[in-house]
Formats: sequence, structure tokens, C-alpha cells
Amino acid sequence: MFRNSLVFRRLGIDTQHEHFVYMREDCHICKSEGFEALTRIQVSDGRETITASLNIIRSEILLPGEISLSESALKILKVEDGQKLYPSHLHSINSFGHLRAKIYGNKLSEAQFHEIIKDIVAGKYSNIHLSAFITACAANNLTTEEISDLSKAMIKTGHVIDWHSENVVDKHCIGGLPGNRTTPIVISIVTSLGLRMPKTSSRAITSPAGTADTMEVITEVNLSADEIKRVVNKEGGCIVWGGTSQLSPADDLLIRVEKALDIDSEGQLIASVLSKKVAAGSSHVLIDIPIGETAKVRSKEAAIHLSSKMMEVGSILGLKTKVIITDGSQPVGRGIGPALEARDILAVLRNQEDAPKDLKERALKLAGELLELASVAAFGGGYQLAKKVLEEGKAYRKFKAICEAQGAFREPETAPYSKEIKALSPGTVQDIDNRKLAKIAKLAGAPSSPLAGLDFLAPIGSQIKRGQTLFTVYAESQGELEYALEYLDYHSNILTIN
Amino acid sequence: MFRNSLVFRRLGIDTQHEHFVYMREDCHICKSEGFEALTRIQVSDGRETITASLNIIRSEILLPGEISLSESALKILKVEDGQKLYPSHLHSINSFGHLRAKIYGNKLSEAQFHEIIKDIVAGKYSNIHLSAFITACAANNLTTEEISDLSKAMIKTGHVIDWHSENVVDKHCIGGLPGNRTTPIVISIVTSLGLRMPKTSSRAITSPAGTADTMEVITEVNLSADEIKRVVNKEGGCIVWGGTSQLSPADDLLIRVEKALDIDSEGQLIASVLSKKVAAGSSHVLIDIPIGETAKVRSKEAAIHLSSKMMEVGSILGLKTKVIITDGSQPVGRGIGPALEARDILAVLRNQEDAPKDLKERALKLAGELLELASVAAFGGGYQLAKKVLEEGKAYRKFKAICEAQGAFREPETAPYSKEIKALSPGTVQDIDNRKLAKIAKLAGAPSSPLAGLDFLAPIGSQIKRGQTLFTVYAESQGELEYALEYLDYHSNILTIN
Repeated sequence: MFRNSLVFRRLGIDTQHEHFVYMREDCHICKSEGFEALTRIQVSDGRETITASLNIIRSEILLPGEISLSESALKILKVEDGQKLYPSHLHSINSFGHLRAKIYGNKLSEAQFHEIIKDIVAGKYSNIHLSAFITACAANNLTTEEISDLSKAMIKTGHVIDWHSENVVDKHCIGGLPGNRTTPIVISIVTSLGLRMPKTSSRAITSPAGTADTMEVITEVNLSADEIKRVVNKEGGCIVWGGTSQLSPADDLLIRVEKALDIDSEGQLIASVLSKKVAAGSSHVLIDIPIGETAKVRSKEAAIHLSSKMMEVGSILGLKTKVIITDGSQPVGRGIGPALEARDILAVLRNQEDAPKDLKERALKLAGELLELASVAAFGGGYQLAKKVLEEGKAYRKFKAICEAQGAFREPETAPYSKEIKALSPGTVQDIDNRKLAKIAKLAGAPSSPLAGLDFLAPIGSQIKRGQTLFTVYAESQGELEYALEYLDYHSNILTIN
Repeated sequence: MFRNSLVFRRLGIDTQHEHFVYMREDCHICKSEGFEALTRIQVSDGRETITASLNIIRSEILLPGEISLSESALKILKVEDGQKLYPSHLHSINSFGHLRAKIYGNKLSEAQFHEIIKDIVAGKYSNIHLSAFITACAANNLTTEEISDLSKAMIKTGHVIDWHSENVVDKHCIGGLPGNRTTPIVISIVTSLGLRMPKTSSRAITSPAGTADTMEVITEVNLSADEIKRVVNKEGGCIVWGGTSQLSPADDLLIRVEKALDIDSEGQLIASVLSKKVAAGSSHVLIDIPIGETAKVRSKEAAIHLSSKMMEVGSILGLKTKVIITDGSQPVGRGIGPALEARDILAVLRNQEDAPKDLKERALKLAGELLELASVAAFGGGYQLAKKVLEEGKAYRKFKAICEAQGAFREPETAPYSKEIKALSPGTVQDIDNRKLAKIAKLAGAPSSPLAGLDFLAPIGSQIKRGQTLFTVYAESQGELEYALEYLDYHSNILTIN
């Protein structure tokens, strides 16, 4: 069946989700496929076959007759050094025809979206093709029908959980707000009141912390599907990482390329959010859209438009959807980064004096809305009920119980290296560039160094004295701290103080 | 100035034009920039700085404190093993804002196109960004003004040649037709008659041969700018590789991604062709658009539309442009692949009995049109004049003189391995899939193995007997021949015989 074989040797190159194959320039397959094009080929271990982009080796890190694969490819072809691999020509990919049709502005059918999404999940799309798909969907505004069809295709190509319950709630915040870690608080409140909220969260991609990164400071988040079921059946909710659950796996691939392009087209955004909610078995979904200059959504008009599209698609997909529009002008809480955000969450749940009030208020508002949406509270009574549960300590007890069911309850630690950034002149804080604050936390090492990040101490309206600390940067190593401070050398306009 | 440094060690990985940087997973910069995103950073050798995409090394091919770069990056940072490199955070790229504006359908100004194209030439765009730019331009049909502005930006960001002559002619064929190697014949004819035709041709990217690959079988094509001038001043023309001349370098980058996506949007196509002609110093340009099922342009309507847009933009750019529409239903000549096409060219120039008549006729038609466009022949008299020059042997003598001025005149050789592909049933040839024929020639090793390719022996209308040879595949090694034949295992429908 295979006319060609080469011997595998691992090089250990991690190229992320796009598979790469490495071959020597004197290999006849390299010559046949050509050096000039952005060539892709097929590689098989005799059982599984992957599509991989070709990089050419012009050194002796591979010997004649050898071939290597990027790390992602080794998760599919489980080959070891010295074993044979079979490279072959990549035959044409049918759904690229649909992709081209979309580029040229044609409306796609559900079947065509399904073929595209299936091929994306199978790894047949390189970053170039993913980028073209994302751009074409953004440029040729998808119709409501297309957004629903795209969502359905994303749902079909992943796992779907059935909780055998009619009241499964979820919330989602349309990102962009550092420190906005309300989810663990909301879950603790609503599950205390008997709602089911099995939350699978993401890790950060370009932000300094995802909910899963933050929760990992306090508890275990890498749970198997069976373990998740056990936790939810016991406590009514969970706060775990969704990465292993393969809900809407196409979205996990698309989202990386969207972040690289820094675009969020309406169609992709709605399909991304709602496909995951359906796949997670939710019946009621609350969507939070913060508006702000440096948030994802920048104007009230844009938020209202997005909101109505979201409700329409939600209804086609059979979800009871509610959208609320909130303030996104500045970070929420004080901490930005996994451990620092975890500390804020615990302060709110424990009703500490120094707990960030804005984080508490946001969490109560969202929990209240969810309680009303799921008819646990009467219209207008959700907030007060949520507040009572939080302030009586019931939410904290529930949170601890969920964490213990997930396998641990730990207190967050403090980073060993830090640097206070002080005001050079006095005044009132007028504006905050959330994106730059997030970038500093990230360059300091968050989230892969969980103690890294920053504490933000100068919210909008603060009266600042010369020399007063505006924020403190934390890092786990001197090198990471320096790397973040280098960014500050070039960006002094993070806060506008007048 | 730089807070971080690592020691370079070459790995010899060729990733084509996109620069990659390799760092170990335990490197603090890797941790700071994050593993999850498609991260890009800056790398400097202290003088030059490049933008590179990050791949993470999870093995010992790099030691702690080491860093590596892809081969393309080493053409800019000329660093050797053991020397220091300085990685730093990539600050935001301004023209990405214009890219996003184009994605969302806004019209760009000449200045915005210029910023984008400048950043592309500077290597600041990853394949993801190039793909988004190409897709956005295709999806939001560029206006005539935008196409001219894009062309001007491409011209401005490269070298422009001034021949100090008002009659500099050129021709271009809108690709897609295997074996269509008329250029060397046309040049020989028109330069015999005193026209100036300094032709810089491309090498193949996804086709089995570019004009430069074919000419390299017969003569030298890698000439410096000074050598090209000398040849053109002596003989009136040249047939060299344009790769070193840096005419419209942005186009060289965009075209690779367009090929990977297999799209050719009108705007990009026109800007690509015409920007190179202006940069090469041409005054009169003849464009050949072959139409065919498997050619680049598939219908007469599309060809006429493209033709009128091309004339409009040509006129804005100050070019005298003529477009002719020709038959693109099948390969031209017999050979497909550098040496086999070179043999056909020589057969025509030498007026051999067995010279492919279709190649000769096409070359005469194009030469005739050019002679009329540049007023060397009267309207309607170009073809006869071209025919006379060819059949009297003047064109062949000129061709040899040009080759000798370029440094050599060699006869093409024949490949050592071949396989005749025979008809399984009798009938009349009705249709030919040019793309699949080209692919077989390519998989057999063309153009990097110059003797590889195929001889096509069954043009449309041929009466075929069972067992008659339809085409012969040639290769320089048994492995390459096998690799091409493997493709044939899956594709039996290359010719339609009824």
C-alpha cells in the first residue's frame, strides 16, 4: 500500500496544533513535493494518517533516511525512535472548495460548514487555511442561519454531555476584562440553591489567566469525564478545565488563529460561545457583555447588536439565553494572574473586610440574574437571594465542598519577586488600558508561572499622589520580572492621570 | 538596551519565508510569552532585528541558554554558533489595524496599502496574517483605485529598473497551462527585430517548471543586475531568473500563500503582474489569458472582465497594455518539466519537422502582437513578420547569442527512468485535466530534478487505440518515479476518452 518509508527520530519541536513533518533536503520525497511551495503531505504510521506541513532540514539533526514530526503529531501517530513512517502525497481536500466559495462571498449550507469543521477537527487545515476561513467569515458577515449552521457543525464534531436534567445553567463573559473572575463565586451561590452548574472553563490563550488557571491554584482542574460527573452529582456543580472534554474542538483551533489576528467576528464569536454551551448540556445561559474602550466590545450599539443576534441563534439552538451589558472600563478586583485572582475570589467568598467590592457586586448581579432565569428567584429578587447566600457563608462552604470533591483545597501563595510601579506625577485616574495591564501580567509569566501577575491599585477616579504605587508586578523569577519591566520601558501610557 | 540574551546554535530548519525562533520550554522568555498562543517575538543580533514565530523545543537539540533560528532568518541575522542573540517582546504592528479594517470591508488608502506592504516585505507578517490579507482582498473585491494603489505600494517597496529606452516590451501569461513555454521563442523573435525585451522570469512555485527552470537547462539564469544589463545592452534581451532582482518582493511572499489557498483574486492577480512589469522598466505589455476548464481562467466572461480591469489599471500605472484571450483547454507542446520543455523550444527555434506545431503557432501569435503593439509591424502584419524571422533561422541565432551572453549553451539531456502510461480502452480524447498532468510531472521531481516530467502524446481529438501510450513519465531516480506513479494509483481520470 505505501511505496515509501522513512525512519522516525524525535526532535521535540512543539509547533502547537499545526502538525509539521521534518525531512532532509536530499530526501526524494522533499524533491518531489518541491521546496518552493508551502507544501503539505500525508504521514502514516500504518494505522493512523495525519496531514502535516513540510519543513526541510539542512543540517545533520536528521540523518539520511530519517524523518521527524512535531510534538502535536506525536499525540496521534504514537511512533518511537527507529520505527517506520510512511509519507505520501496529500490528495485534494474537498472542503477547500467550500472555503473558496465562502471567500468569494457565497452563502454556505449546513452540510458545507459541517465538512469544513470536520476537516478542521481532523487537522487538515493549516494555519493559512484556518486564517482564510476566519477572515472570510468575518469579511462576508454570516447570516443568522449561517451562524446557527456553523454552531451546529461545531457541536456535531465534538462530544455532547447529557445531564438528564432540565435546569442546567451556565454563564459566559465576552472576554477582555482582566481579573473578572466571577465564575467560581457565581457557581458557589447558585449551586448552594440547588441549581446545576457543571462549568468547564478554558485556560488562558493570550490573557494572563483563564478561570481554569486561576482555579488550579486552589484545587485540581484536570478531571476526567467520569470524575466530573461524580463531582457534579455530589455537589451540583464543578469548576474544571474543559480542555480534555472535547466540547467543540474546532473552536479550540479557530480561537488561536483569531487571537493571532486579533479579530472577533460576530459570527465566529456567537458560534464559539453557544456551541460550547449546547455541547456542555446547558439549558439556560447568561451572557455578560462588558463594554469599554479596551474591552472586546467597545460601544453600546455594538453590544446591543451582538446581544440580539446571540438571543436569535440561542433560540434556534434551543437555549434559554439572557444577555446583560456591563461596565468594562477597568479591571475587576485587584489581582491579575492566577494566584492573585484566586486570592480575590477567596476574600469575597469569606466576606473579608478587604475583599474587592466590584468583584463581589458583579458576582452577585450575575448570580441573581441566573437565579431569575432559572426561576429559582422571582423577577427582581435574584440579587438579594444571592447576597444572602454569600454573606451567610453558605457560598463559601459550597465552594470548599466543590474543591474538595475535585481533589484539593489549597491557599494561594505569594510570588518571591515583585516591583512596585509608582506615579510620576499626581492627579486623578481617568482611563486604564486593560490590554496593556494584561500584557504586563503575561510577560511577568502568568499564567504558566501561576504566582506571577500584578495587583492593580488605582481604579478610575482614584486621587493619586506623586510616588504612590499604581500597581505591583509579581514574578516567580528575576528573568521574568525583567522581561515584564522591559515592556514598561516602552509603554508609559497604561494609565491616563490628569 | 537588551535585558535578555541567549546563545545561538544552528539547527538548519528551513521554514521558507516565515521566520521561526526556537527556544527551550524552560527558558523564561518562553514562559513569559506563553505556550498557548501562536506567539511571535523579536530577535536581534545587536544590529538587525527580525520578527519571528516561536516554536518550543522539548528535547536536548538545544541546551539551556541556547536559541536557534530558521534558515530564512539567518539570511538577515548573520549569526554563527556561539554568538549572542537578543530576544524581546514584539510590540504591536501598526498596519495590522489596516488589515483588520480591510477584513471588515473598509476601503484602504494608498498610504495604508503602503504600510501593509512595507511590513510584509520587512517580514512582520506571519503566514496567518498574509492569508488574512489575501482573503480580505479577495472577499471585499478591491476597487480599481485600490488595485492601482496596491500595485504602487508593491512597486515602491522593491527595486525599479530604468532602461533609458521608450520601447521596452514584455509579455505575461496568466498561468495554468503546462508546457506553455513561448517566452524564449518570443524574445528571440522580437529582439532579432530590434525590440528591447529584458525578461526576468520566475521559477516554479507549485507548477512543474517556470520559464527560469526551463532556461536553466540550456543556459545560466542566475545573473547579477550588472550581468543582466551587459547581456541586454549586447543582445537587446535576456531570459534570466528574476528572484535576485527584488522587483516587487511583497508579491513573492503573497504568491506563496495564494498558491497554498489556491485562490487568485482579481485584485491581487492584477497588482502582482503589473507591479512587476512596471518595476522591470517595461513600457509595452502583452497579457495572454488562456481559458479552459482546468486553466486559471475558466470562462470567456471572466477573461473579458479581467482583461478590462487589467487595461484600466495598466493605464493608471502608465503601461501600454494589450490583452489577448487564447485556448487553454490542454497542454502546449509535448514536454512538461524543465528539460522536456527546453527540448520543445529548441525544436521550434530550429524549425525541426517534429517541433510541436501548437507551441510554434502560439509563439508566433504572441510575437506578432508584440511587434504590432510596439509599432515594429503594421496592424495585421506582426504574425507574418514573426514567422519569417523564425523560419529563416534568425530567431534561433539570436536565442543562441543570448544564451552565450548569459554564459552557456547546453543541449537538454534525457531522464534515466521512465514509464509509459497506456490507454486501457480505445476512443477519442475529449478532455484533459491540466492540473493533474502538472501534478504528476511535479511528483516525478520537476523542477528540482530538471530532467523529470512527462511527455504528453494524446491531445484533444486524438483517436486512441487500446494500449497506446497516452503519456510517458520521466524521473531522475526510481524513488521519484514511484512517488509519481503512486499518485496515478488514485487518479485514473486524467484524460476523458469516449
